[in-house]
This record gives sequence, C-alpha cells and structure tokens, in this order.
Amino acid sequence: MKKEQRINYPSSHKIYVKGKIHDIAVGMRSVTLTDTVSIVNGEKVFTANPPVTIYDTSGPYSDGNIAIDITKGLPRLRQRWIEERRDTEQLRDFSSPYGIAGSTFPIVHKPRRAKDGQAVSQMYYARQGTITPEMEYVAIRENLHGGEQTVTPEFVRSELAAGRAIIPANINHPEAEPMIIGTNFLVKINTNIGNSALMSGIDEEVEKALWSCKWGGDTLMDLSTGTHIHETREWIIRNTPVPVGTVPLYQTLEKLNGNIEDLDWEIYRDTLIEQCEQGVDYFTIHAGLLRSHLPLLKNRTTGIVSRGGSIIANWMTKRRTENLFYTHFEDICRILKQYDTAVSLGDGLRPGCIDDANDAGQFAELSVLGHLTRIAWKHHVQVLIEGPGHVPMHKIDINMDEQLKTCHGAPFYTLGPLTTDIAPGYDHITSAIGAARIAWLGTAMICYVTPKEHLSLPDRQDVRAGVIAYKIAAHAADIAKGHAGAQLRDKALSKARFDFRWKDQFNLSLDPEKALEYYRAGHLDDDSGHCTMCGPHFCAMKLTKEMNNCIK
Amino acid sequence: MKKEQRINYPSSHKIYVKGKIHDIAVGMRSVTLTDTVSIVNGEKVFTANPPVTIYDTSGPYSDGNIAIDITKGLPRLRQRWIEERRDTEQLRDFSSPYGIAGSTFPIVHKPRRAKDGQAVSQMYYARQGTITPEMEYVAIRENLHGGEQTVTPEFVRSELAAGRAIIPANINHPEAEPMIIGTNFLVKINTNIGNSALMSGIDEEVEKALWSCKWGGDTLMDLSTGTHIHETREWIIRNTPVPVGTVPLYQTLEKLNGNIEDLDWEIYRDTLIEQCEQGVDYFTIHAGLLRSHLPLLKNRTTGIVSRGGSIIANWMTKRRTENLFYTHFEDICRILKQYDTAVSLGDGLRPGCIDDANDAGQFAELSVLGHLTRIAWKHHVQVLIEGPGHVPMHKIDINMDEQLKTCHGAPFYTLGPLTTDIAPGYDHITSAIGAARIAWLGTAMICYVTPKEHLSLPDRQDVRAGVIAYKIAAHAADIAKGHAGAQLRDKALSKARFDFRWKDQFNLSLDPEKALEYYRAGHLDDDSGHCTMCGPHFCAMKLTKEMNNCIK
Repeated sequence: MKKEQRINYPSSHKIYVKGKIHDIAVGMRSVTLTDTVSIVNGEKVFTANPPVTIYDTSGPYSDGNIAIDITKGLPRLRQRWIEERRDTEQLRDFSSPYGIAGSTFPIVHKPRRAKDGQAVSQMYYARQGTITPEMEYVAIRENLHGGEQTVTPEFVRSELAAGRAIIPANINHPEAEPMIIGTNFLVKINTNIGNSALMSGIDEEVEKALWSCKWGGDTLMDLSTGTHIHETREWIIRNTPVPVGTVPLYQTLEKLNGNIEDLDWEIYRDTLIEQCEQGVDYFTIHAGLLRSHLPLLKNRTTGIVSRGGSIIANWMTKRRTENLFYTHFEDICRILKQYDTAVSLGDGLRPGCIDDANDAGQFAELSVLGHLTRIAWKHHVQVLIEGPGHVPMHKIDINMDEQLKTCHGAPFYTLGPLTTDIAPGYDHITSAIGAARIAWLGTAMICYVTPKEHLSLPDRQDVRAGVIAYKIAAHAADIAKGHAGAQLRDKALSKARFDFRWKDQFNLSLDPEKALEYYRAGHLDDDSGHCTMCGPHFCAMKLTKEMNNCIK
Repeated sequence: MKKEQRINYPSSHKIYVKGKIHDIAVGMRSVTLTDTVSIVNGEKVFTANPPVTIYDTSGPYSDGNIAIDITKGLPRLRQRWIEERRDTEQLRDFSSPYGIAGSTFPIVHKPRRAKDGQAVSQMYYARQGTITPEMEYVAIRENLHGGEQTVTPEFVRSELAAGRAIIPANINHPEAEPMIIGTNFLVKINTNIGNSALMSGIDEEVEKALWSCKWGGDTLMDLSTGTHIHETREWIIRNTPVPVGTVPLYQTLEKLNGNIEDLDWEIYRDTLIEQCEQGVDYFTIHAGLLRSHLPLLKNRTTGIVSRGGSIIANWMTKRRTENLFYTHFEDICRILKQYDTAVSLGDGLRPGCIDDANDAGQFAELSVLGHLTRIAWKHHVQVLIEGPGHVPMHKIDINMDEQLKTCHGAPFYTLGPLTTDIAPGYDHITSAIGAARIAWLGTAMICYVTPKEHLSLPDRQDVRAGVIAYKIAAHAADIAKGHAGAQLRDKALSKARFDFRWKDQFNLSLDPEKALEYYRAGHLDDDSGHCTMCGPHFCAMKLTKEMNNCIK
C-alpha cells in the first residue's frame, strides 16, 4: 500500500475558518479564478473574479501542510474536544475478543467509553443546552459560498435536540471531521464500499474510501461481508475523514460462519460493542421488521431485497420468534449512547422493484421505525430513518409524507429511489432522478447507487460515477430548497463559461478532470473563444458578446 | 462505408402487427424469455414466461428479412400511402439549385409536393376526419407491452386535429416509420447529431444516426454547420427510419459563408424548399424572438445560448429590423404545409444557466410562440414548442404551466432541462433529472443531452450514454403518468431478476450489452443463483426464496 496519499484539486487551496466559540478550524476548499478579459475601446480590460469556497470532504488529504501516512492514520482532530468533556474514559483494553485480536494496522488506539453508562451523544449535549465544538464546526461548514450566515451554532444545537438532525461522531473515530445530516442543512450523500466474500482486498477498500472522499462522499458505509472484516474496517476508519457506518449483522454472521439460525443477542451485542469501540459512527439495524409483516409480502414480485432484512426475516421464520433487534432495542440503545454511535433504522422491507413500491409491508415497517425512534431518543441516541429503494416518480412524495407523519421529524436517508427497473448498468441515473426529487422534498441524506448496482461490486470508476451522480442530485435539491448560497457556485461557473474561461469552468465543476478530458477530446487550444459544439463561426455566446458590443 | 448495416438485439425478433383499417404492418421487437425454474417437492418445475413486446425505433435494420444497402437507402414504407392520397405530385426536378447540385448519394428520388399549394399535413387530414395509415400506424405502435388498447386510431386523429400531437412525416421522407409526439402518448426522445466546421464526416454521422436508432432515439436532428451539409443530410435521411429535423438557418448561413448580415428571406426561403424537398420532417425556426425582447436580456449571466437565437438576434441588431422568421411566418407556413414539414418553434431565449431561468425574456418569447402556433395551425402546419434549457427543479413546473397557458396545448419539446450548472461532463445526468420531471408534467418530447454537452461534439459512446439517460427519463415519466402498459417491462425484468434469470434481465433492459459487460466483470458463471453484490451466502433474494419455502 502507498503510505502517502494525497487528494489534489486544480487551482484550489485549503483554507480554514476559525470558530468563535471554540478553538476550532474548519477546512474548506478555495478555488482561485482568473480574470474576466473584455475589450473596451479596443483595449483589453481585466476584471478580477473572487475565489469560490467549496464544501470539502477530503479532510487532511488536500492539505499539503499535514503529513499523511496511511500506516499511522489521520490526525485525531476531535481527540482533545472529547477528552475535555471529561465524561468518557479510556478502557484498558477492547471489550470484545474480536477487538483484542486486533488487526494488521500498526497503531493501537485504546477505546473510550462513557463513564458510568451515561449518554455522550451530540443529541444529549444539545438537549443540555450545550454547544459542542462539533456543533460549531458543522455550523461553519454549512455556511458556504459566501451565502448569508443563516446556520448558527445555536440552530444546529436546536435541530439536534429536536432529533431533526444528527452529527454522527463516535468518540472512537476522532479522525472524522464533524458533519451534519438533517433536512434543514445541505443534502448529504452516502457511499457504500466493502468487499464481499468474492472480491477485493484491504488496499482496494481503503483506496475506494479516499476516492469517495475526493469526489465528495459525505459519509461512507463499509458493507464488507467477506474475511478480514475487522481488519479492513480498522484501516478504513483510521484513515477516513468522514463518518463511517456499518451493518453490524454482517460481521456477526461471519462470526457464525454464515449460520443464520445461530444468531443470538449475545454474539450480536458483542459485535456492536466491538464496532463501537473501533469507532463506527452509525449502525444500520433492521429493528422494525416484525414477524407480523411477513405475510404482507406474499404477493411481492421481488420479495425482500435488503440483505439485512432478508437475514432477520429468515431468522424469525426459522426460529419462530420475534426480531431480536426489536426485542433488544433498548439494550442496543444503552450500548450506542455510551459511544455516540447513531442508529440508522434499516428498511428491511424496502421495495426491490417498481411493482412492490409503497406496499403495506413497506409502510407497516416504517411506522415501527417511528416507534423505535422515540425509544432511541429516550436514550439520547441519534437516529436516521432509512428509506427506499425502487419507487416510481408518482409514488415518491407519499414516502416523504409518511416518513414525516410517522417518524417525528427524524432525518430520512434513502437509497435512490430508482424510478424504473429497466436500466441495469445505469442505475446511478435511474436513482439520481428519484434521489433529487426526494431530497428536494426534505430527505436529509441520499445513499448513492453505482452503475454496477444489481450486477457486480463497483470499482473505482463506478464509485466516482455514483458519487458525482449523487452530488448532482444533492446539489440540485439544495438549489430547489433555496439553501443560502447553494447557487453561487453555479453562477460563478456559468460566468466562467460565458467568458470562455474554460479552466475556471472546469475547476469549479464537480469533476474537473473529466471536464478537461472531454474538452481536450475536442482538440482545441485551451483558450479558444468558442467550443467544438457550435464551431468557431456560430458560437451562441460569442455572437451574444458581439451583439452586446453592437448595442453599446 | 459499410453498405450492410444491421441492428441486433439479444433474444429478440421482429414482429409485425397488422392494421385493421389500412394495409399496414407495424414493426415491434419481441423479447423471448426463458422459463422460471422452481423446486417443488424436490423436483424442478418449469413455468413459461411470456415474451415481452418493446417499442422499436430500429426500423428495417433489425429485420433480417429486409435487404439493407446504405448506398440505396431504406425501403420507402410510406410511398404508396402518399401516392394513394392523390393530393401530391412528383416534381420534374428540385426547386433549389442546392437540391439540383445534389450529392454523392447514388440514387436520386425526385421530390413530391402538394398539388395546387394545398395542405398535405397529417393535421389537415385529421381535421377532415380522415384516419390516415400514419394515424393507424402510430395507434398500433403506442399500444405496447400487452397493455389495454387505449390508443385508438380515432383518438390519434382527434389529438392531431386539436394540435395536441404531431406526426412528423414529410412526404419526401417515406423511409421513416410514423411516430407521434404528444402529451397523451409515450414520451419521446430526440437526439442531435451533426458535424461542425471542425469535426466529423459523412460516414460518422450516418453511423451515429443508426446508432441513435439502435438505442431508442425517436427522432433525430441533424445540426451540421460545416461543409457538405446537403450531402450529409441526404445520406442520413435516406437511411434513417425515424423523423429527421434540422435548423435550416445553419445551412442558410453556410450558403452565405457565415455572413450573418447577408441573411434575407430569399436565401432562407430557398433553403426551406431545398430541405422540404429532401425530406426533412421538422424545422426548428426561431420566429418568436423579437427585437423588443433584446433589452430584457441585459442582466443575464450567459446571454443567449441558442445558436439560432443568437444568430437572429445578431441579425436584428445589425440590420435594425424585426426578425424575418417572424415577419415571414405565414410565408414559411405556406411552404411547409405543401410537404408536411412540421415547425418546431425554437426558444432562442432559453436560459443558459440556472441564474437566468424563467426570466422575462424567456417567457416573453414563449408567449409569441403561442401566437405563432395559431398562425401555423391556420395553415394546417403541425407545431412543436421548444423549451429550456437550464432550470432549477423548483422552477420547472412553471415552465410547463406557462407553456400550457400560452401555447394552446401544442406539444412541448424541451432540452433537458439541466437542474444545475456545476457538472460539465455529466450533463446527461443533470438534465435527465429535469427531463424526467417535465416529461411527467406533460412535455411530449425531451431532447437528449450527452456527457460532452458544453465541452465537445459527442462521439458514439456519448450518443449511447445520452440516449439511454433520456430513455430512462422518458420511461420513468411514462410510468408516473400511468401510461397503460409502461410498467409491464419493469415487472418482467424484475421477475427475471428475482428468478436469477440473468440473461432475461439483461435482454429486457435498455442496454443489454452494458448490463452483460458489467455482470461479467464480476467473474461469475452466467447461471449463478446470486450476484457479486451480496456474495453467495447473504443474497437477499436467495434468502427470501428459502424463507418462502420454509413458510410453505
């Protein structure tokens, strides 16, 4: 593995905005622009264009002043903040034998846990009226593009206290930069990586994690099911500047050699603690799928398509008993609150095809998720609600409506939804259409889908394609929601386009490398005053300029 | 150039559905499926899956029984229908010297024109109460997937008569299969090809045309601006089974060596006739952009981005006179009606960035398009209304509302719209999001955008990516609109997915080749009962089946 990894963006440099309440510095990316050149009375006149600030998920990788060594892990940004709260203690060792067995990662950080079983979640602090460094950090982060400073630390606190937003921030993942997920904030995107039993190794997964951060992934789920799950995750968490989520059930089953019937509370509990102590920021837990829901599925075209949902449904059927995640949900919350691991309530019954969308099973589970939300909040555990799936456009709105009605304002986190089933190989697009719509309606985070969904595990280029498609959906939603400043980047880029400042246009885009590559495929000089679309004679923007000069 | 060109789809064959009123046979694609295999009492049980019929834009290229020779052109499907109407006559020669100069295409078809200057448009016939073969053809074509036969020939006629739909069907392009564009029919997609002064030759453009038809392009605009415009178009029209559109202004300007000021009615009129006699099915004409609109643009970020719009604005400014397409609009209609060339009223002031969306200039032009629609209809000329462009999601609906309010129900035909400016290199996605939305709201045809929009001319793979993105948007809208039968293909594909009938799944998809390519990248046997996403142990659909067997 290459120890030194860097993320570079053209004509960009890292800036840090200082906190006013806390001693914090929030990293952002500043894009330097060239001058607009116009001809006035035959003379060239240069007008400066101000730099544009961009929300940055690349963490220290894009700061040349910070030493990077993958074998050492990222700087532990939040370590001091957590220690200074004095409500946690460092354990003498990992609680789980799987934690103790450790990994090939060279440095061991002993885990922290809340003192005396108390809650140490951002929700807990918010409810106490405390503005943490994490809260001020995300407030600064959300106020981008020179927009009005509408997001204050106090607003962040109040949204967290109400459960309308979460900051996934496990005390054992101090490397991650705080970020917020909530309907009144910028729409976030999650990316999934992870080896399966069949493919990919540690190196590849760590590289994918950084790759996801480079293109703008806000959170990262490690969905590994193969061997070396703990080890792979250790390398990822120690080197990832964004929150990391998992589905703990997967590793639990690996411990049971795949024997679903052997699943019980003790081994699952052990896995939760193992992962909490490793630093996982949020867990997907399929606690809302009940035995009574199963008969509702009998006419489905594609049954259960959630991996976790199908496993627990299988277990309930074979063991003839209720979902143990449901029956042990309070036990789960008592663990999670001691590490500030958030719970993402999984939608095990999400529809797997257009034909199954919005059926009785799907909404029955959703209402249980609402019930569980209240329980989690009682323990100050931060909650996300997972949503579909495959949903045609005319059935998307009701998903948001039902979620708002039943889940008390907890942030919605959807997979797409895919708006048609007929385009395997292009499901980043079928789902970006649905994701943009549901995000506009208020969904706080959208889980990306790659072109290889339904077909194979994504490689690096698939991850890039999926992330960019979802950055588009999220940004389109931010604009539609009227988020202060969201549109400034569009305007700066379009002004560059009109000025034929090609490089500026590309540098402001979601994927500068791709834009430049396509542009160069047109065999043009970099400074030509037209593009290959119209050719040199009938370029619309060139003609507009000529006309404007005529009118002057 | 390769003379023999074929379009092949896996496990598919061509079927023809006969007309009941006319002696016509409508080509469709039938996809054969394999059996569902289930285990009952330890024995394999095979259940047949019916074939699925798919709307087919590939014409004779996918029929092995029809001889194809690019140097001869396609069979002239509509020749007999047109002749039997006895309202047209074959001219002794082309009316324009540019038509007479001809091209390298080996066969010359003398042009036809209406007798005595009468209208020979599908709208005219519909208003007379006549159901033409073209109308019955599209009625059969629209009733797909075994859905109810809701689209009757009489319904088609009534929609055409009301101007709510058009069948672009120049009497000099009898090679094209009739298709219908209207809000009460399947959403159609247009693709743009065309060389610019800088790039691409005849071979490449003809190949792109077939390529577009292969993937599902419903109509094709030839936007060439370079040399050999007439010649390139001749090869395209003679070999294209879908309607072909142009912007006649482009060729007019090539005749004037690019000197915009020299543009006048006589040379433009000559170009219209030349192209009508060659077989162009619809013209984009920027007749709604008036001198009085230009002051409305002064605060725009990107001015005019329509090539045609910028040319005519330039001309008006330099000549200090009103738009000649507007002042001569009745003259234009008198030409078009004699060939049944439809007019697509261009939106020269479509916004070129999010910041310019829905401004006064854009809507001022739209209301003029509504006025021109009435004039065209007076002459029985079929009308499309072109729409934007760059529009954020929250401003899309008002575009449809305004179009409905001002344009008397004429079909809307939009370019995207793009919902953000910040993703050059991915504008097929930024725009598919907007296109899906506006198509759901009633837009009849969406003009594709390729990944290279704003950057370079598209190559074959860009055309494919653009077409598939737009097929997705159109199909998602068809489902959302509740078009009878639209969802059956999704259901058949999803059933195949649940059955692990991988090949069936791919064969039913929009791009079977891409799906298979991605699937094979997972290194699996073709008949494995799981995919590489979940791995063999925790495949959700496999577990669902096991559970169902348990419950039984």
